[in-house]
Amino acid sequence: MSEGLHRFRLDIEYDGSPYRGWQSQARGKTVQDAVEAAIFRLKEGPKRLICAGRTDAGVHALGQVVHVDLAKDWKPGTLRDALNAHLIEANEAVVILAAARVDESFNARISAKKRHYLYRILNRRAPSALDRMRVWHVMKPLDIARMQEAATSILGHHDFTTFRASACQSKSPLRTLEELTVMRVGEEVQITTSARSFLHNQVRSMVGTLAKIGRGDWPVSEMRAALDARDRARCGPVAPAQGLYFMKVEY
Amino acid sequence: MSEGLHRFRLDIEYDGSPYRGWQSQARGKTVQDAVEAAIFRLKEGPKRLICAGRTDAGVHALGQVVHVDLAKDWKPGTLRDALNAHLIEANEAVVILAAARVDESFNARISAKKRHYLYRILNRRAPSALDRMRVWHVMKPLDIARMQEAATSILGHHDFTTFRASACQSKSPLRTLEELTVMRVGEEVQITTSARSFLHNQVRSMVGTLAKIGRGDWPVSEMRAALDARDRARCGPVAPAQGLYFMKVEY
Repeated sequence: MSEGLHRFRLDIEYDGSPYRGWQSQARGKTVQDAVEAAIFRLKEGPKRLICAGRTDAGVHALGQVVHVDLAKDWKPGTLRDALNAHLIEANEAVVILAAARVDESFNARISAKKRHYLYRILNRRAPSALDRMRVWHVMKPLDIARMQEAATSILGHHDFTTFRASACQSKSPLRTLEELTVMRVGEEVQITTSARSFLHNQVRSMVGTLAKIGRGDWPVSEMRAALDARDRARCGPVAPAQGLYFMKVEY
Repeated sequence: MSEGLHRFRLDIEYDGSPYRGWQSQARGKTVQDAVEAAIFRLKEGPKRLICAGRTDAGVHALGQVVHVDLAKDWKPGTLRDALNAHLIEANEAVVILAAARVDESFNARISAKKRHYLYRILNRRAPSALDRMRVWHVMKPLDIARMQEAATSILGHHDFTTFRASACQSKSPLRTLEELTVMRVGEEVQITTSARSFLHNQVRSMVGTLAKIGRGDWPVSEMRAALDARDRARCGPVAPAQGLYFMKVEY
């Protein structure tokens, strides 16, 4: 960090529907653009955010975390409120939940010890009116006991090549899956998962495969067999972005 | 009901944000228009829906109920799925949760014995990104013990003139308020209420007054004093439509 700068942690909530994902890119508006534009309006000049997890287009966040180095030693509450005022004025679906002054050793991406995601499936005959862009609608009844058995079979340290997007830029396909839990909550099937880090599309790939098993299209044993095959072709259809929520980061 | 017609009950969910309320009107699109257009596409011709509760612009429903008389003796599941297919094709934020064949003595409006509403207040510093059009954002901390005491003080059979829109078309301002409960659910304050029927804007008027008391602007005793005054001017600011949900009807 350069001399005279002050590092802040921002906790961010966003509706992913109107954005082309977290990260700035050549075309289309991203969540990163929205927050950086709000910072620019604080007369801080162009600042670059480092985030805990880059989400794809349409993926939501209730607890994205970023860090940013600012020239002014803002009072954290003032920084949060000022950014929210600019985000609301720009009609963005992005909100700063909290701002905190952190030590320069804090890095939102590198310091993260555990990342938590939630995936919401609406499992009923009728689609959703209120949560159209918030859930994956699966009409056929899902057997969550089968899904949980399959989920448990891939916990731990493995080569997750099967559940990794071909575009994934990570050097290693090895990850340690700490939690993968399937619950029925009213008319929804909710899948929660955590790990130090995930491969690109890993959560949606695992969910898509679990849904195949929950619908009875594939045997329970296919989850572990697909993992062991280390073959992307064995993955179920990747579940749609709109059901995925980046929930929390532990440091 | 005319000879040869078959009466159906439809349970309906909708996102009120894009509509000018339930009821068809001269200008602007309504939820009623959306459902009647879907029925028209079933080659049923123009049909009029009778609903349990006309909701205002921006108000949501998880359990609106209507009845309609159709020429064809539809299988209920087929009717539900066919209507949903047309609603999705028309990109409406309206869904048919259930369809059922009912006796001609069933009237969605007149037969209703109890109506249930939920009001959601997001009570934190930061606004909501994901629920922008789904909650009322109140920054200042609300004291729910004060709100509950005030709520309890107006339960029962009363003249609710204070909590009634000036545009209300009901002949009598007398209603029996059966339930008015204030709960904290995470960062939200949720208010649930039920009665055989409500006056126009009654729920939002009661919620707006409760919020004044919860913020400490008004004493707890003002709720009952305002009721007893039978004076619209004593009502708090009417709470915004976007936090209100029509939940359920009992018959």
